Amino acid sequence: MEQTKIFLNESEMPRQWYNLAADLPTPLQPPLGPDGKPVSPDMLAPVFPMNLIEQEVSAERWIDIPEEVLALLSKWRPSPLHRAYALEKALGTPAKIYYKNESVSPPGSHKPNTAVPQAWYNKQFGIKKLTTETGAGQWGSALAFACALVGLECKVYMVRISFDQKPFRKLMMQTWGATCIASPSSQTDPGRGILAKMPDTPGSLGIAISEAIWEAVMDKKAETRYSLGSVLNHVMLHQTIIGLEAKKQLEKAGVKKVDIVIGCAGGGSNFAGLSFPFVADKINGAKIDIIPVEPSSCPTMTKAPFVYDHGDTAKMTPLLPMYSLGHDFIPPPIHAGGLRYHGMAPLVSQAIVEGLLTPRAIHQLECYEAAVFFAKTEGIICAPETSHAIAAVIQEAKKAKEEGKEKVILFNMSGHGLMDLTGYEKFFAGQLVDYALPEEEIKKSLQAIEGLPKPSMAKTGKW
Amino acid sequence: MEQTKIFLNESEMPRQWYNLAADLPTPLQPPLGPDGKPVSPDMLAPVFPMNLIEQEVSAERWIDIPEEVLALLSKWRPSPLHRAYALEKALGTPAKIYYKNESVSPPGSHKPNTAVPQAWYNKQFGIKKLTTETGAGQWGSALAFACALVGLECKVYMVRISFDQKPFRKLMMQTWGATCIASPSSQTDPGRGILAKMPDTPGSLGIAISEAIWEAVMDKKAETRYSLGSVLNHVMLHQTIIGLEAKKQLEKAGVKKVDIVIGCAGGGSNFAGLSFPFVADKINGAKIDIIPVEPSSCPTMTKAPFVYDHGDTAKMTPLLPMYSLGHDFIPPPIHAGGLRYHGMAPLVSQAIVEGLLTPRAIHQLECYEAAVFFAKTEGIICAPETSHAIAAVIQEAKKAKEEGKEKVILFNMSGHGLMDLTGYEKFFAGQLVDYALPEEEIKKSLQAIEGLPKPSMAKTGKW
Repeated sequence: MEQTKIFLNESEMPRQWYNLAADLPTPLQPPLGPDGKPVSPDMLAPVFPMNLIEQEVSAERWIDIPEEVLALLSKWRPSPLHRAYALEKALGTPAKIYYKNESVSPPGSHKPNTAVPQAWYNKQFGIKKLTTETGAGQWGSALAFACALVGLECKVYMVRISFDQKPFRKLMMQTWGATCIASPSSQTDPGRGILAKMPDTPGSLGIAISEAIWEAVMDKKAETRYSLGSVLNHVMLHQTIIGLEAKKQLEKAGVKKVDIVIGCAGGGSNFAGLSFPFVADKINGAKIDIIPVEPSSCPTMTKAPFVYDHGDTAKMTPLLPMYSLGHDFIPPPIHAGGLRYHGMAPLVSQAIVEGLLTPRAIHQLECYEAAVFFAKTEGIICAPETSHAIAAVIQEAKKAKEEGKEKVILFNMSGHGLMDLTGYEKFFAGQLVDYALPEEEIKKSLQAIEGLPKPSMAKTGKW
Repeated sequence: MEQTKIFLNESEMPRQWYNLAADLPTPLQPPLGPDGKPVSPDMLAPVFPMNLIEQEVSAERWIDIPEEVLALLSKWRPSPLHRAYALEKALGTPAKIYYKNESVSPPGSHKPNTAVPQAWYNKQFGIKKLTTETGAGQWGSALAFACALVGLECKVYMVRISFDQKPFRKLMMQTWGATCIASPSSQTDPGRGILAKMPDTPGSLGIAISEAIWEAVMDKKAETRYSLGSVLNHVMLHQTIIGLEAKKQLEKAGVKKVDIVIGCAGGGSNFAGLSFPFVADKINGAKIDIIPVEPSSCPTMTKAPFVYDHGDTAKMTPLLPMYSLGHDFIPPPIHAGGLRYHGMAPLVSQAIVEGLLTPRAIHQLECYEAAVFFAKTEGIICAPETSHAIAAVIQEAKKAKEEGKEKVILFNMSGHGLMDLTGYEKFFAGQLVDYALPEEEIKKSLQAIEGLPKPSMAKTGKW
């Protein structure tokens, strides 16, 4: 019998996270404050605990995973590595396709890989409560889960339109003991300000971030902090457990060389988690194609410039060096919620600038077709975000067939879509259309970054 | 670091299913036809393929699992065995609690363990299409998944009220390529008959079963068969892979003896799957408590008699020897959908009569409290059905604490509750009440079995 899944025992879990910042050919550009000067670690202290800030600015290649964090991660990790025999057969491809199945976590995605250590480090630092924002609800439910496990209060500001449309996500958070409220709310200054002007607003991620940060920094006892589910360096760091496990599993499966690594990328964390250990190999000379995939409707990596921009619409965050469509960017409403972010993680962005990654944008109909094809062959109903990775895998598998090459393709099955079936419903009903963001829209959206500092990338000559 | 999960490699998967019928002290009573005479295998041929009928009537102890079925099951099996350290700690119990995590299957429950072999055996027999009914949607989505993997058409009659209230389940089936329609429908004689009399009926499982069987037997090419997700002997058989895996995993964990085995029981399949290999040990002299758990609102095992009764309301099925509240029983509307069945699997029923099992009924508020406690400690949001097993586990763990005994408790985490969060919502809103079925209701419901033959259980003297 052919082996479909490769397991690792808990004793084989990676003991350290991998930090790509240590290996990038050009050092990371620092975040900048409103004055255009680099932000120092202590300036972030009201928002994040110092132990996570240390990880955020670390240049160490390997960072130990605390034993207690490993014990918590072992509630669902190591995640299985699957060989996609049925998908390969249906495509008639000579490619060997493997995927990490991150859907086995209780919240159903890769998000708890960073939610758990973030909650644990905050608890260690004496913090009592975490605040965060959530759009579709994936991140909010992962943080609620993590806070339940370590014993922290958790408050989630959920974008009002999602709060109303997705009551199940709110119920997940509630079951784990978190408080989930619609944003904008009347509980924060930013929320009250918006409500006074626009009482019927559907809300936005930008507003929700502002509310969550405001609550954290306004706690007079300084026992509340804010938590972010993507974009930042320490989030990418925690997610590398995916790729590090995958390497061990591929070795067990007797795979000597991976040719193509693929992940979908919104803020960048699931992609980074799988791919960064392979990016390290590429820096060391390995020949490997590493492909972050985004929607054509939000083409941050494929159409936007590498700039300094804010992480949020309300400009409460420092300026980050990243590919960005501009912080005022309003994505088209119908799409994978997790891939609608205007920016891209600085670590992923710089790896693109360095020529280590080859981003790709795909239309949404092709993605949903890929998702349904995957469900009927491999059996898993994937998240709408994950469908972008699968669509790219199918493109590459077909190319391998044309070329007659037995390539090894590895991708990240970042989450299941059981809480996001309305996208499938619209697809089946023929209500989804392809939409590529027009050049004039991009130009207009990029006006938001005019006058902001530019990153210097002397080595690559890009700037 | 303590080991939280015990994995098996695919090469360690059981190669045979265990058939309890071979070991029961008294032979199973046969199913009876409308004339009160035993039903012969060929009388079932229009409904089921002969290879499954052979399993249904088999008295062999071990039945080989075909290699191709093992390959399909390996898409998610072997399922992990978890040690519930966090739950034990929160309860302060000396008991060691283990659970099989069946929520890792793509449809999220134990149901595919039988859906996949049923689909495969039908395909082998030359069948082109399977029909079935579904209430809450758990079984219908599992069969849709299985039919996608083996390449069969699948038609699911879903009780209308659930069809309207749970559009996500329908979408899961659709994604796997199945057709899911509301029952009663205008596509079958039984459906048309009901609609003519009651155009606004919310439907029932009984009606849906009738429609599914009707479509199967009316196929002029005889290429359609019907599939049932619980109750029957071959369904129990397929589910024993759960308990057989658990035994191997407990051995790996160094557990010499299990003291208590617990599962929730509606039709009986997830309970049987985990427990039957341990029932075999008990028959051979092992001291072990084996507890099927049901809701107080549907107390089939704890309040009803062991009788011959029909499996469905419309009396289309043969008479089965089982504990039954009567085929006209209408369960109270608010409850775990999978535990509202009027009967109980004949194999489970007879094991109760033989004194091998000690059934227990629990109120729903205690079950939801247990579910929320489990989510906050172990991290998994369980199905409403599964919460009954967890409530019994907590009862036994507290008892072990009082007695100061280090017992080993094993239970079946039969599925996750991500598609069934409305029950949690009602619980949080204080809208759920405890309800035990009153004696007079039971008496009234049992009128349906008056005049039907009685099973002879001479050996135990119960009849």
